[in-house]
Amino acid sequence: MEMRYFDCNATTPLCVEARAAWNRANDDLWLNPSSPYRAAARVHAHLEAARSELATLLGVESQRVVFNSGATEGNNAIFAYWSASLPAGARIGVSPTEHPSVIESAQCYFGDRVEWLALDRNGAVALEAINWGELAAVSVMAANHETGVMNPWQAIAHAAQAAGVAYHCDASQWVGKQPLAGLAACAYLTACAHKFGGPRGVGFWLLPADESGFACFAGGGQESGRRAGTENVAGIMAMVAALAAARVGESTGRDAFLAALPEFECVGQGAARLWNTALLLAPEFASNRWIRALEKRGYWLSSGAACATAKAGPSTVLAAMGISDAAMRRSLRISSSAATTPQEWAELATELRAVYAELRAEEEASGSSVVTI
Amino acid sequence: MEMRYFDCNATTPLCVEARAAWNRANDDLWLNPSSPYRAAARVHAHLEAARSELATLLGVESQRVVFNSGATEGNNAIFAYWSASLPAGARIGVSPTEHPSVIESAQCYFGDRVEWLALDRNGAVALEAINWGELAAVSVMAANHETGVMNPWQAIAHAAQAAGVAYHCDASQWVGKQPLAGLAACAYLTACAHKFGGPRGVGFWLLPADESGFACFAGGGQESGRRAGTENVAGIMAMVAALAAARVGESTGRDAFLAALPEFECVGQGAARLWNTALLLAPEFASNRWIRALEKRGYWLSSGAACATAKAGPSTVLAAMGISDAAMRRSLRISSSAATTPQEWAELATELRAVYAELRAEEEASGSSVVTI
Repeated sequence: MEMRYFDCNATTPLCVEARAAWNRANDDLWLNPSSPYRAAARVHAHLEAARSELATLLGVESQRVVFNSGATEGNNAIFAYWSASLPAGARIGVSPTEHPSVIESAQCYFGDRVEWLALDRNGAVALEAINWGELAAVSVMAANHETGVMNPWQAIAHAAQAAGVAYHCDASQWVGKQPLAGLAACAYLTACAHKFGGPRGVGFWLLPADESGFACFAGGGQESGRRAGTENVAGIMAMVAALAAARVGESTGRDAFLAALPEFECVGQGAARLWNTALLLAPEFASNRWIRALEKRGYWLSSGAACATAKAGPSTVLAAMGISDAAMRRSLRISSSAATTPQEWAELATELRAVYAELRAEEEASGSSVVTI
Repeated sequence: MEMRYFDCNATTPLCVEARAAWNRANDDLWLNPSSPYRAAARVHAHLEAARSELATLLGVESQRVVFNSGATEGNNAIFAYWSASLPAGARIGVSPTEHPSVIESAQCYFGDRVEWLALDRNGAVALEAINWGELAAVSVMAANHETGVMNPWQAIAHAAQAAGVAYHCDASQWVGKQPLAGLAACAYLTACAHKFGGPRGVGFWLLPADESGFACFAGGGQESGRRAGTENVAGIMAMVAALAAARVGESTGRDAFLAALPEFECVGQGAARLWNTALLLAPEFASNRWIRALEKRGYWLSSGAACATAKAGPSTVLAAMGISDAAMRRSLRISSSAATTPQEWAELATELRAVYAELRAEEEASGSSVVTI
């Protein structure tokens, strides 16, 4: 059976451009870029050309781009750096809908000096409620990994700059899906390759141009001293190739899909959302029953963040949006690629309705409605 | 011109087994192993099978193996963890010949509570001089990246265990070159794939079986909570394939090479050393002049650690061994692969003698000996 993949916010298959770049780099650019012979200097030049290409895509100066192993390292290092460099007692504002790698890093390094930012009724951060005067730094993601809800990050970036407050944007779900214009306004930004067709284990930061103290990992002087460790040249070439090839999508099919499923609540439906994402609350039955039944019919989709699945806890995102535990257990996260057609969305709606009928029939056959939640 | 690579301690080309494993994993195992459908559980099972295979190669229980992004992350996280978990005021013993990612992490987290361990006259850590009673933890690498000198790590591991002292072994230059037997005795161990034919950006720790508080990065619950971040499945499969294929070598050719070059001092020649490494002090002329001349003749070799080259500082390894700044500026690090033949070593000796004659002739032609160092 040909499977249809609707879990692109968890990870994406490696695109052909990234695979070709990775294999080519391992043929031609495998020397250590820090080695002292000319051929290694050539590898270093290619690495800097990749940095420059990424900087151009993002509209920033090359020196703002620093490569790392992905968004979890990226997010952790921002809070470690802020905790070491901001004044003692400094408070930071964090959206309660952030990815666990932001939420838990913030708590780890700032404890009760984290102020959870208020949300509007659609789950986006309420810009006007931010107490700029009480905060030294703010972390608000560009677009949510579970709901696709977009935050007003561009306005936050400018307000933070005006207030002299550091701003970090986890753009892991934005980069590769949405236009990159404007991201240069984020003083600190994290993203990773495997969300847009690049390989696992590689990502990047944008850092402020005038930042001088940031240093993730002690050791060699790679990345201008800002991230020690032998540069993952093949991974970096593959990431940049993937981003250059990534298609900015639009919600063709997603909205008709939602209209076809009136019994399902779509979380954050009133908000500006990523074109590829729909976080549904099913009318009945636990997420896992839906997911298993849909997999048998050829569809892969999720209940929420894969990183949260690993911990098997409830969704902090949905809890922050005031959604009940009971409703949360019926969540289905559907996240397409830019290649997904309206036809495929429509077929998924049909399958969801068929699964609903199937689960109801099972339930009636078992003669009990007690286990439905 | 076919180049001969004598810089294997800096990095290695990707081996065919690793490349095949990486590409295959990106075809078949690209789903996020934390996603909630059965096909993702299959990816997770393959990841655990890779962990199990690596554990078998190392002779340890699977749960001691934790994957990461490489030895720099690996080494940093050990000192971060020790600094958070050892009693306040605890002192640690560190070999002064360690890689910068160990030296600088130790200094970063322990400051003046680092005790630099004494060396014997060949540059190996002097086991009998370790003050076990004054130390809470000890970090001594298996084999040195610049000189190839082996430390008595197995005896240190057992003495540390007997003394109730935590022991960390940076085995980055050992794993893939030497037999793995005995490494299980190291409570904490770090290594990375690109030193033995695997890809850049992936490595692993061994942690104590009963260790419970270690957590590198806050975020998802991956790696049993010990290293958050989406698992780099393709990189891990490639690393394990590379290690399974790695050939333990022997010093065929290296010792005859040294005997053919009596004007060159070999650092640590009296010590047990890696079969592939020779750190030479040339009789005259700065490292870079040798390296450039040898590159023109088809040879890639280094002056020392690539990670130190990035900082362009002197070699802390050679300084710790009491070698003068002037001598250090004439250092040449030669590190072969297991495929290097005695014939290739002999040809390198011939080329070194030819370059020496060439540099002397240049020097005489310029009519000055002032610039020789």
